[in-house]
Amino acid sequence: MATAANSVPHPTVISGIHNRWHPDIPAFVTVKPGQVFSVECVDWTGAQIGNNDNSDDVKNVDLSKIHNLSGPIAIEGAEPGDCLVVDILDVRPFEKMPWGYTGIFELENGGGLFAREFNSRAAKAIWDLEGIYATSRHVPGVRFAGVSHPGLIGTAPSPELLATWNKREQALIDEHPGAVPPVAFPPLERGAYVGQHLPEELRAKIAKEGARTVPGREHGGNCDIKNLSRGSRCYFPVFIKGANLSVGDLHFSQGDAQMSFCGAIEMAGIIQFKTSIIKAGVEKFGLRQPIFLPSPIDPLYSQKLVFEGLSVDIHGDGKQYNMDASVAYKQAALNCIDYLMKLGYTREQAYLLLSAAPVDSHVGAIVDSPNACVTLALPVGIFDFDILPREEGLLKRDLGQCAIRSDGVL
Amino acid sequence: MATAANSVPHPTVISGIHNRWHPDIPAFVTVKPGQVFSVECVDWTGAQIGNNDNSDDVKNVDLSKIHNLSGPIAIEGAEPGDCLVVDILDVRPFEKMPWGYTGIFELENGGGLFAREFNSRAAKAIWDLEGIYATSRHVPGVRFAGVSHPGLIGTAPSPELLATWNKREQALIDEHPGAVPPVAFPPLERGAYVGQHLPEELRAKIAKEGARTVPGREHGGNCDIKNLSRGSRCYFPVFIKGANLSVGDLHFSQGDAQMSFCGAIEMAGIIQFKTSIIKAGVEKFGLRQPIFLPSPIDPLYSQKLVFEGLSVDIHGDGKQYNMDASVAYKQAALNCIDYLMKLGYTREQAYLLLSAAPVDSHVGAIVDSPNACVTLALPVGIFDFDILPREEGLLKRDLGQCAIRSDGVL
Amino acid sequence: MATAANSVPHPTVISGIHNRWHPDIPAFVTVKPGQVFSVECVDWTGAQIGNNDNSDDVKNVDLSKIHNLSGPIAIEGAEPGDCLVVDILDVRPFEKMPWGYTGIFELENGGGLFAREFNSRAAKAIWDLEGIYATSRHVPGVRFAGVSHPGLIGTAPSPELLATWNKREQALIDEHPGAVPPVAFPPLERGAYVGQHLPEELRAKIAKEGARTVPGREHGGNCDIKNLSRGSRCYFPVFIKGANLSVGDLHFSQGDAQMSFCGAIEMAGIIQFKTSIIKAGVEKFGLRQPIFLPSPIDPLYSQKLVFEGLSVDIHGDGKQYNMDASVAYKQAALNCIDYLMKLGYTREQAYLLLSAAPVDSHVGAIVDSPNACVTLALPVGIFDFDILPREEGLLKRDLGQCAIRSDGVL
Amino acid sequence: MATAANSVPHPTVISGIHNRWHPDIPAFVTVKPGQVFSVECVDWTGAQIGNNDNSDDVKNVDLSKIHNLSGPIAIEGAEPGDCLVVDILDVRPFEKMPWGYTGIFELENGGGLFAREFNSRAAKAIWDLEGIYATSRHVPGVRFAGVSHPGLIGTAPSPELLATWNKREQALIDEHPGAVPPVAFPPLERGAYVGQHLPEELRAKIAKEGARTVPGREHGGNCDIKNLSRGSRCYFPVFIKGANLSVGDLHFSQGDAQMSFCGAIEMAGIIQFKTSIIKAGVEKFGLRQPIFLPSPIDPLYSQKLVFEGLSVDIHGDGKQYNMDASVAYKQAALNCIDYLMKLGYTREQAYLLLSAAPVDSHVGAIVDSPNACVTLALPVGIFDFDILPREEGLLKRDLGQCAIRSDGVL
Repeated sequence: MATAANSVPHPTVISGIHNRWHPDIPAFVTVKPGQVFSVECVDWTGAQIGNNDNSDDVKNVDLSKIHNLSGPIAIEGAEPGDCLVVDILDVRPFEKMPWGYTGIFELENGGGLFAREFNSRAAKAIWDLEGIYATSRHVPGVRFAGVSHPGLIGTAPSPELLATWNKREQALIDEHPGAVPPVAFPPLERGAYVGQHLPEELRAKIAKEGARTVPGREHGGNCDIKNLSRGSRCYFPVFIKGANLSVGDLHFSQGDAQMSFCGAIEMAGIIQFKTSIIKAGVEKFGLRQPIFLPSPIDPLYSQKLVFEGLSVDIHGDGKQYNMDASVAYKQAALNCIDYLMKLGYTREQAYLLLSAAPVDSHVGAIVDSPNACVTLALPVGIFDFDILPREEGLLKRDLGQCAIRSDGVL
Repeated sequence: MATAANSVPHPTVISGIHNRWHPDIPAFVTVKPGQVFSVECVDWTGAQIGNNDNSDDVKNVDLSKIHNLSGPIAIEGAEPGDCLVVDILDVRPFEKMPWGYTGIFELENGGGLFAREFNSRAAKAIWDLEGIYATSRHVPGVRFAGVSHPGLIGTAPSPELLATWNKREQALIDEHPGAVPPVAFPPLERGAYVGQHLPEELRAKIAKEGARTVPGREHGGNCDIKNLSRGSRCYFPVFIKGANLSVGDLHFSQGDAQMSFCGAIEMAGIIQFKTSIIKAGVEKFGLRQPIFLPSPIDPLYSQKLVFEGLSVDIHGDGKQYNMDASVAYKQAALNCIDYLMKLGYTREQAYLLLSAAPVDSHVGAIVDSPNACVTLALPVGIFDFDILPREEGLLKRDLGQCAIRSDGVL
Repeated sequence: MATAANSVPHPTVISGIHNRWHPDIPAFVTVKPGQVFSVECVDWTGAQIGNNDNSDDVKNVDLSKIHNLSGPIAIEGAEPGDCLVVDILDVRPFEKMPWGYTGIFELENGGGLFAREFNSRAAKAIWDLEGIYATSRHVPGVRFAGVSHPGLIGTAPSPELLATWNKREQALIDEHPGAVPPVAFPPLERGAYVGQHLPEELRAKIAKEGARTVPGREHGGNCDIKNLSRGSRCYFPVFIKGANLSVGDLHFSQGDAQMSFCGAIEMAGIIQFKTSIIKAGVEKFGLRQPIFLPSPIDPLYSQKLVFEGLSVDIHGDGKQYNMDASVAYKQAALNCIDYLMKLGYTREQAYLLLSAAPVDSHVGAIVDSPNACVTLALPVGIFDFDILPREEGLLKRDLGQCAIRSDGVL
Repeated sequence: MATAANSVPHPTVISGIHNRWHPDIPAFVTVKPGQVFSVECVDWTGAQIGNNDNSDDVKNVDLSKIHNLSGPIAIEGAEPGDCLVVDILDVRPFEKMPWGYTGIFELENGGGLFAREFNSRAAKAIWDLEGIYATSRHVPGVRFAGVSHPGLIGTAPSPELLATWNKREQALIDEHPGAVPPVAFPPLERGAYVGQHLPEELRAKIAKEGARTVPGREHGGNCDIKNLSRGSRCYFPVFIKGANLSVGDLHFSQGDAQMSFCGAIEMAGIIQFKTSIIKAGVEKFGLRQPIFLPSPIDPLYSQKLVFEGLSVDIHGDGKQYNMDASVAYKQAALNCIDYLMKLGYTREQAYLLLSAAPVDSHVGAIVDSPNACVTLALPVGIFDFDILPREEGLLKRDLGQCAIRSDGVL
């Protein structure tokens, strides 16, 4: 018979929280290869954003404290040069917090893909998480299944790798003094947190040298890849003994590119793992960066409406760029935002929707000089109403507005 | 009973050939909305490349003559500001030419995504087209179903739009004098062809002003979007009376990004269309560029191995770029090429394979400064052997080499 | 900020348990349309089967007590003739019971598709549920993502409908006296349970008249449809005021046809719902039985190996049946079991695997007299090793055996 | 350069036609393993049905002459006990006949799934084949991509196997004397055709003994499996030297079950093959019947509306059947036909549509005594209008009628 004795839950490793990458942050816990375990994660901001109807919390968010990562988790037997295989078995919100948020950040505090174009002011959408689906009172008319994933997951860097990161990013900062938003983020002692009782000297060292968590790097990190989702198997290079895996920034859903910076449906929740080690895997697979096998259960929205974009700023000053896929994707997104506005969404709602929904972006071609061509595919099936281009044109509905600042500034 | 009388084939519109975009190229034929018709297309180079085992024809290709387009085809009733709806009903090779090719072009004559990194010398693969599948004696070990599509399809520009193109592209050329390969291609009288008996003066005007066909633009054109495939419905803006649709550069298959420039499986063949017109569709849909509904029959290779790339040149000098998705995709592709080489492919074979096979590229994130993250997904099911990362490492096979120059230079 | 105050979990409706269908079982709870709520379910046997390594519990299972259903749940405003729309938002195991089981039942106690052919003795497989995946120490070599669903869900019958059921099933029983296993199950007072304090007279009436829960019927019930899974939207006819929805028999995964009777991965767990009512929906949609929209997130195992079966008993006495799709499917399944045995699985393991894994069965044709043709599609990607038919034949591995009776009888 | 010399089409093997299965029909042509070749096929009736607007040709069809098969094709080296691997590389209509038909046959001349229920009179729909799509003037409002496939493909039986077929089918006929439509078809000399100049005695023998082509059998044959489509790889048992493959009954599209008997979109056209041989494959794979790997390019209509059916004749006399999947599927289909009629289709149109469109049928469960549960999934995306069950009910359109008899009898 089924009894308590023969029913044992997988353990939850209550992980430490830290918000910098550094080889000297000690592992909070050690797991064995083959063991199934769960990790609890706060949302990336550390609960700075609430389930309410204005965006003042987004406006005032303190980004020196991000991202709140759970870990490091050492895997027994992992050594530099090995490949750490990580099965992401599950990702889900806490039962007691069935909601998430997508935010547009202020131009001067966070930015986003269109921060400059839109002179962005804080806005957000709260999403209700109902089983596999998300809906939002701030973006009515859509319901979609989440491709839940960790926005951020990676192994700890070696001292050498950390030094490389800090050096090359500082060089970029030096090339663009005073950029708004900044082009990169150097180590910052303010806000640094390691979540463990460490000697003062060590804490100071980590705070001073620790790489910021914003960009993805050779170890994985904040790659925000929507298809590295629950059910995926990921292969990480190991840089230090134990591998020291950290994870956070859980997303219930995200569109390719995560446009609005805080562009996924950000949530607090639980992620479940199982690991194994392939000795000398870095050499065996030529592993300069993680590779992965996506999950078999990503949502199947087969009908899509696709928008093209080229590396010409046709929504702005008409400038011709040289084979720049980022410019091209921005044009595709702006084309789509225009279309969504004809359906009745505000620009802010459209921006949030493209950030949060399972939108696909493909690089069409980047060899036809001078125009890179990138596409954005909007899944038709997530809308409650017909969005297809019909002979009679598009019906503009009253779809309200998302949550904005309490002072009403857009 | 089924008789000749009640069995009438859809007509083939034997189209003219031209290789420049210009509003003054007269329509070669006029079709009615609702009519099903076929268009025959030579390959993009006009049969300069042969089914043989060296790449000298690629080395010596004359690119002033490309692309060979079929058309223009006027659609009765289309006027500027309308939306031309084009159903791509079928795309297939000529029965008498069941083969296609993928080429790596010389750095100095065509280029490609890695022309500079690889100091590219001409190479190619010939693909045998067997029903829905392609295989190659030059890239053994793979077989895949084609996502056949026109690499190039678009409406004719208005005089104003043409002038805009020429102006903005010249400005880019002026910024990069002497670039190899060139950053863009200005109008070129040499090689210009309109395929019809036109007054000398008009021919000269077209040759002098006509836009080159290399880049995609607001009218569609050479977008090389693999999913704008047979079965798709595309919505084009109309710029001149009749719309004057032209098409060419048929691809049996292509990977996202069409890496090696001549990166698809290029073929000669037949494309079948049906059109309709949505009056004032440009305004109705906010149509600055084409949008489309992809086909329901793209191949389903659900298991993929995904490679990540960031905007840091880790395969080169390690330079940090600022949120550049093109750099990121190149890194992902180089990671994948390294992996394929561990399986036994040469660098040239791997480059050709990623160009021709149904490889997917997604923009993961372009908001995590300074690193854009772009992924490349390699379909596992196209290989005859197991390519997954296993504990024992990868088995290096002898897979020969693709077609190279007769002088042996790589 | 995210606080306890703005984070409220969806409520769990702690439902009553009952094991018969009867209009007079009072609703245990009433919910409002639009409300998200969760329902806890024991496994269908009421915890009679344990996580251990013999099948004695299966051998001795008391089937008079099944199925243990949670409910009835009344929906405010539902009336006979309405359509009850039920969103199945989530289905998952209890965190503290990350396992499930698949059982082969004894010929004389439960049966199954091949009970007579195999003279079935009790056997079982325990599945470890690790996030979205199931694996089993009793069926090594496979791992698959679950298409989790309620095996049993339905609205309460009206007195008239209940009478129809009992009458027509009794007629069938009367036609097949003494059949082993029985062809149908009449009302049975022994084991009947309603889970609420009801007047003795009413309990007796329900026990005497209540329909057994084994077959699916016009109200839904035990349809065991694997694709009525988490994310589906189902439309039920309403027969009594409140609709009185009951649910149970949660499956982590199941193959089409649920071959071994207890053929899914049976589990205890939680199901989450949201409902709405379409007034007079029965008439609007011609709703004689439930219809549904499947989930967008069923697993994508695109490569399959398909086995054909015809309505000729080629595995038995060679008898020709007349267009009997059930016979045809059995042949397809026996063909597949033979194939799996060549890979090293025992007959029992193969039977359990086809029951539990996401196997698809299609009715190919049932018009080509006298042979119905039905296919069984085995997903290739769920195996750890290559199962494709290769020139060198199939490699027979040592894959052990599933859990069998402690007396060793097979 | 591409020249005629380096461009050689795959050969078309102009095959003989025959309409019976018999080991003594000599191979019309012999091909080598590895060779790509095409086979031309007339439609199954031999052009008895025309592209017109009444169904008199269906009413009067001579079924003694069917199916018109192309072949036999011997494969060099194939011997009894081998496995013949057949790649179906392509299936398409003749360019000069871009149309096909779906027919409802008379109860007394052909029948069909609902021949008795509907007392069927001849009706049909002509489908226009436009590239990958089919549309019909007789069933307006739908457009779908074809899953083109051979309805009938198989190897020749050995004398022993042929004898087995004839014996077991005669036994069934003997059990159901005078059935309308007949339960099976014994050898029939009238109409028998072998398409080659053979000695009179041999022709008489074949005509007398040759198995009719209506049912699928152990060699494949008329299985009408919609997913054995272009791009599939099929493994056939070989029963005689050379294997002697025959093929015909090409379908542009078909729904699971091919309901109306002539239930696919029947067409004349070309099928392309490539073969190989696995020696002793019958033993290696336990091959009692063909197995196959489906194509990677079947259409992706992910949104479906699913109808359930049980083995109770709720559309007829309410009789309870014992676990009969054929009855269950018929109920599911009748439920769907009722739904389609609420949208404005006639019963005949609905019957034809379910036969021809890519409808999926799954066996849900056949272990829950006494009710088998079978589902029918209707792809939503093939309709031009919204068919989903909405709160306001279904909008009944005027959709005309299909082609019926010139005397107007339905």
